[in-house]
Amino acid sequence: MRLDDRMTPASDATLADIGEFGLIDELAARFASTEAVLVGPGDDAALLALPDARVLVSTDLHVDTRHFRRDWATAEEIGHKVAAANLSDLNAMGGRASALTVGLAAPKDLPVSWALGLADGIAAECALVGATVVGGDLTAADQVVIAVTVLGSVVGDPVLRSGAQPGDVVALAGRQGWAAGGLAVLARGFRSPRKLVEAYKRPEPPYDAGAAAATAMIDVSDGLLADVGHIADASGVAVDVASGAFELAEPLQAVGAALGADPLRFVLTGGDDHALVATFPPGTDLPEGWLVIGSVTEGSGVTVDGSTYEGPAGHTHF
Amino acid sequence: MRLDDRMTPASDATLADIGEFGLIDELAARFASTEAVLVGPGDDAALLALPDARVLVSTDLHVDTRHFRRDWATAEEIGHKVAAANLSDLNAMGGRASALTVGLAAPKDLPVSWALGLADGIAAECALVGATVVGGDLTAADQVVIAVTVLGSVVGDPVLRSGAQPGDVVALAGRQGWAAGGLAVLARGFRSPRKLVEAYKRPEPPYDAGAAAATAMIDVSDGLLADVGHIADASGVAVDVASGAFELAEPLQAVGAALGADPLRFVLTGGDDHALVATFPPGTDLPEGWLVIGSVTEGSGVTVDGSTYEGPAGHTHF
Repeated sequence: MRLDDRMTPASDATLADIGEFGLIDELAARFASTEAVLVGPGDDAALLALPDARVLVSTDLHVDTRHFRRDWATAEEIGHKVAAANLSDLNAMGGRASALTVGLAAPKDLPVSWALGLADGIAAECALVGATVVGGDLTAADQVVIAVTVLGSVVGDPVLRSGAQPGDVVALAGRQGWAAGGLAVLARGFRSPRKLVEAYKRPEPPYDAGAAAATAMIDVSDGLLADVGHIADASGVAVDVASGAFELAEPLQAVGAALGADPLRFVLTGGDDHALVATFPPGTDLPEGWLVIGSVTEGSGVTVDGSTYEGPAGHTHF
Repeated sequence: MRLDDRMTPASDATLADIGEFGLIDELAARFASTEAVLVGPGDDAALLALPDARVLVSTDLHVDTRHFRRDWATAEEIGHKVAAANLSDLNAMGGRASALTVGLAAPKDLPVSWALGLADGIAAECALVGATVVGGDLTAADQVVIAVTVLGSVVGDPVLRSGAQPGDVVALAGRQGWAAGGLAVLARGFRSPRKLVEAYKRPEPPYDAGAAAATAMIDVSDGLLADVGHIADASGVAVDVASGAFELAEPLQAVGAALGADPLRFVLTGGDDHALVATFPPGTDLPEGWLVIGSVTEGSGVTVDGSTYEGPAGHTHF
C-alpha cells in the first residue's frame, strides 16, 4: 500500500503496511520548512544555511526500554524527550539548534500512528527554538532505536567543558531532579506526583538561559555530580557542591517521603531534566534563572559539602 | 575497569568490561583531527569549520543482520561500508564530506575489539575524502545499530534529484552490480568470486566523479532502476535504460552462470556499490569514468529497452 497525499493511514496500520516511502512522505509533511532550509528532506542530503561558516553538531541514540518506555509515555512525549536531549546539547555549548536529522529503526509491526506521533513531538519541540527536521532514515530492526543529530550555530566562541578556573562559582539553570523523581515513581508503578512524572516524560530544558559569560558549561544528562565531574576533569579543577543551595521542591520531598529516599539524591544524581550547569568568574552578575550551587578550587574531583558523595554519581550505559 | 592512556584492552574484553567512557576515549583516539575540526569529540557538541555558511547533512542507519553481517565481514570492513554509504550521499549532491558523527548501539557483550575495528574502518574510509569523525554516542541495545551522519559542503549549487530534463542523457559512474553479485554468493555460503565478495564487503564509491555538469544525480543504494526511478519521479520525467550499455564484467557473468541468474539483474536491481547515476544535458562532454546508460524523455516512470522491467527494481526496508 502506498499513500497518496489525501489519504490518512488506517489507525491500526503498521510500518509493514504503509512501506518505507509512504511513511517518509507522511513524516516529511510534518516538518515545517524554515529560512535555514535550502534543500529539505527527500534528496540524498539536506542543505542548510548557517549564520557563519561553522556548524555545531551532536548525536544521541535513544533505545526503547532503556531511554524511554512506550508503555509509560505517548509517542508525542517521547518525540519531545528525544528532541530535547539533543537540542540541549547545543544549549550546553552556548549555541542554538537550527536543524535535526532523525533516524528511526523499528520493528515492522510498529504502528504507523506511533511513528507519526513521534514526528509530531519532535517537530513541536524543535519549534520551541526555531529548528526543524531536515532529513533522516527509516529501517527495520528488532528494537526501536531513535538516532537524533542536531546541527546549529554559536555566536562567538562556544562554551566548552574545559574552561572552569579556580575561584569560579558553579551555577545551575533549569529544573533538576524532577525527572529522576518521576522515573522513581513510574518504576514502582505509580503515576503521581503528576508534576514529576510529567517532568520525566517531557523535560523542559532552559533553552534561553543566556550563559554567554560562563567559563565552562554542560547539560545534565548523566546526573548532576557526574556531569559536574566532566567539567572538573576537562578543566583540571575541583568542584565542591553545596547541598544546602538547592530548593527541594514540594513534590520531590513528597516522593522522598513516600519512597523512603533522600530527595537530595534525585537532585544530585538524576539526569534527564537537561538542566545546565556552568561556571562563572567570581563576581559575575548571573543571568536570571541561575542558582549558585558550588565553587571551583584547585585540585580534582567533585565533593559535596567538602566530602566525597556516597553512592553512584549518575548513570552509565554499560 | 577503566582504561588509562597506556593500556590496551584485553583481546576478549567486552563493552561491559571497559565501560562507556573508557571506550569513548579509545575510539576518539582513532579519529584524526583535521583543519576543519574547531572542537572535536569530548564536549556536548563538536564545532566544524566550513568553506561557506552552508552545510550538507545526511543520516543513515545500519542494522546488524540487515545491512551487514558480522560473520561475513570484519569490523574494519563494516566500518568502511557504513562510512562509504554516507560519504556517498554527499557525493550524490556534488558535495564533499568533512565530518561524520557515529552512534553505536550494541549489546553489552560486544567485544571491544569489534568496536575499535569498526572505528578503524570508518576512520580509514573517511580519510579517502579528507573527512574525520567529530562526535558520536554509545549506548546499550539488544542489537548492533550504527547511526552515521555526514556533514560537508558543496561548491555552488547542489545537484538534486529533480533537475533532469527531457533530452538529457543518463550516465553511470562506478562499479554497479558487483556488490549484489557478492551478496548472492555469500547468501549461498560461497566465498568467491573474490572480487564480488570484496565489492560487497567494501564498496568503492566514485568519490571524485566530477559531475558538476549534471542536471540531476543520485547514488545507487536501493537498486539502479529504483534509484533512477527516484530521479524520474522528482524531475517529472521518464527514463529509459539501455540494457546493452552495460559492460557485464567477467565475475558477474561467472556468478550468473553458477547461480542460474541473469547477470544483468545484479546490475539493474543491485544496491550497495554506491555508484552514481546522473543526467547530463545532450551533447555534454562527459567526465572520465562516466558511461551513458540511457535517456530522459517526457512522461513518467522507468523502462528498460522501452519496456517495463519484470521483477523488483530494488530493495525496500519494510
